[in-house]
Amino acid sequence: MKMRAAVLEEFGEPLVVQEVELRDPQPGEVLVRLVNCGVCHTDMYTASGADPSGYAPAVLGHEGAGVVERVGEGVTSLAEGDHVVTLFSPQCGECVHCVDPRTNLCMAIRAEQNLGHLPDGTTRLKRPGDGGEDIRHFMGTSTFAEYTVMPEIALAKIDPEAPLDGACLFACGLSTGLGAAMNTAKVQEGTTCVVFGAGMVGLGAVAGCRLQGAERIICVDLSDDRLELAKGQGATDLMKADENSVERILEMTDGGYGADYTFEATGNVKVMAQAVEAARMAWGLCTVAGVAGKGETLDVIPRWLITGRRVAGSSFGGVKGREGVPKLVDLWMQGEIDVDPFISHRITLDEVNKGFDLMEAQDGIRSVIEFQ
Amino acid sequence: MKMRAAVLEEFGEPLVVQEVELRDPQPGEVLVRLVNCGVCHTDMYTASGADPSGYAPAVLGHEGAGVVERVGEGVTSLAEGDHVVTLFSPQCGECVHCVDPRTNLCMAIRAEQNLGHLPDGTTRLKRPGDGGEDIRHFMGTSTFAEYTVMPEIALAKIDPEAPLDGACLFACGLSTGLGAAMNTAKVQEGTTCVVFGAGMVGLGAVAGCRLQGAERIICVDLSDDRLELAKGQGATDLMKADENSVERILEMTDGGYGADYTFEATGNVKVMAQAVEAARMAWGLCTVAGVAGKGETLDVIPRWLITGRRVAGSSFGGVKGREGVPKLVDLWMQGEIDVDPFISHRITLDEVNKGFDLMEAQDGIRSVIEFQ
Repeated sequence: MKMRAAVLEEFGEPLVVQEVELRDPQPGEVLVRLVNCGVCHTDMYTASGADPSGYAPAVLGHEGAGVVERVGEGVTSLAEGDHVVTLFSPQCGECVHCVDPRTNLCMAIRAEQNLGHLPDGTTRLKRPGDGGEDIRHFMGTSTFAEYTVMPEIALAKIDPEAPLDGACLFACGLSTGLGAAMNTAKVQEGTTCVVFGAGMVGLGAVAGCRLQGAERIICVDLSDDRLELAKGQGATDLMKADENSVERILEMTDGGYGADYTFEATGNVKVMAQAVEAARMAWGLCTVAGVAGKGETLDVIPRWLITGRRVAGSSFGGVKGREGVPKLVDLWMQGEIDVDPFISHRITLDEVNKGFDLMEAQDGIRSVIEFQ
Repeated sequence: MKMRAAVLEEFGEPLVVQEVELRDPQPGEVLVRLVNCGVCHTDMYTASGADPSGYAPAVLGHEGAGVVERVGEGVTSLAEGDHVVTLFSPQCGECVHCVDPRTNLCMAIRAEQNLGHLPDGTTRLKRPGDGGEDIRHFMGTSTFAEYTVMPEIALAKIDPEAPLDGACLFACGLSTGLGAAMNTAKVQEGTTCVVFGAGMVGLGAVAGCRLQGAERIICVDLSDDRLELAKGQGATDLMKADENSVERILEMTDGGYGADYTFEATGNVKVMAQAVEAARMAWGLCTVAGVAGKGETLDVIPRWLITGRRVAGSSFGGVKGREGVPKLVDLWMQGEIDVDPFISHRITLDEVNKGFDLMEAQDGIRSVIEFQ
């Protein structure tokens, strides 16, 4: 079938929205009509060419939500009309990690090894016409497009009442932040938390800490606007970030010891070090949820560890996607999470590059593409 | 009273064994006659002048075991004749950390803040004669001496049947290693562990992993002799350390994923990074038990964390000294830990500098001073 999609043709150049051909879903695959898609930093990072493992041509996009249009042979858990969120991190339910409660790192599809091909080594995307060049997938999702074909195990079926413009945010940043607090750190009631960064991930972490019953949630960011949004998600203390953030946090916390839990949601390795240091001696846990640039290292002073701090990392918030995303969406539907403030701009697919520009300008939290 | 003690007079120079005056125990303090004392790397590090927070003159030594000679006013938990192990990390039982099961970092005596004075700002050590200069304590213990005065809360009462030459090793290195596996990492049965470094701490960690029921214990070291000792403590696989240690560990572990638990017991920050990387993706825990030099940092690639590894640190193995050391000594008495192989050399107090030389030459695990 023919459809419109935003193609990364050249690194560092705007995406080119154009007609693309999508092949039929194969056994175990599902054709999804996208209704909404968030524009995330990872898309922009790849488009810029800064990611050495990037490739082109490819259809970017991974924060998608839509409706099942057709299912391939053998698909049993989804049917036409189901509302779904796309998962860059699948859940096969059978691999060594899926059967273990400690991790969400499903090994069934290794997007970083497939380099834009589906597990069978082929693509469903190509340029129109006979012999049209193959176009590669991105993160196994390619949701900057009117339609996508994805494996059944990489789609989470959600409450059909949930608006898809908010639901798409659960495909990446929001679940990452919520899960960092709820799954990775397992924040305990009555504790003190610090969240560094009030972008989509950080705001999700603030909401996650609140849902876990944290007594105090200190949010640190450079932007007053974003800090105001953090307040709306449950932050009890707002702090303009500077080089003395750690000292100020220590002064604010009981006994000057630091916070029970800290979260890093900027991807900046210097902020990661601050987050480790601001964790409480004796038992503080620092959870790194931001993604650093390739080649960068987090410098940890060993004494921070020896005196009892722990450091963890969180990928997609430790959420096992097919099980976990529907539950998070349900929390939203029950009024426990306020998603609307995260949708800063609504754009069309043709305006996808504007979404990158707004992100570069740090204007708002998320631009959400509305298809048709 | 007068006694003989090894005094650090000048950094970088041999300790000077000489007559020193020891003042009476004050309320809450205990006079201990030392029977044995291990020579530990921390003593040598301070003597060398490499530790910027070091001071002189001071009586070094902290791995002591002996017999209570006399108790000060108000001491209720110890009596003359009790056998004790000295604790550089006390357990007051009342501070915010002592009442919390998650940590052993008692806040009652902050040796690093007292800079060689007891909490009341005075010392019990001085040069002989009226007006003799004060000599400072070291780590609150100063056990390179025939006697020491220490707070009741920094002495662990042990089984009087336990030979004190082995018991003294529980005052530092051995408990640190055992506890890293048993308390900090809480190694689970049937798991795979890697211990980097087969000195006193690493060998203790190997024994701790065995006691916890680990299925596989890989020990990595530069010395065949030390690896042989690790085998005696329960290591199932021995590996000569090199720059490819991590790759070789990944090849040896199930699915090439790495080890469920790794332990760093060298103090070398490059080895710490290897220990983080060798921990299993998805849930591997790296416990840092070695003490790095001042100013050195552990470089962590954030991707190691994001893909599920965790990093923790362990000070004195997370052992709450007064409660925990007697239990570890009991395990030894029950035949669960083989302590004799750790005593490589028996020396007199006058030979304390020889103990440093043997350590520098990496000859054996521990030199133990025998008093009288």
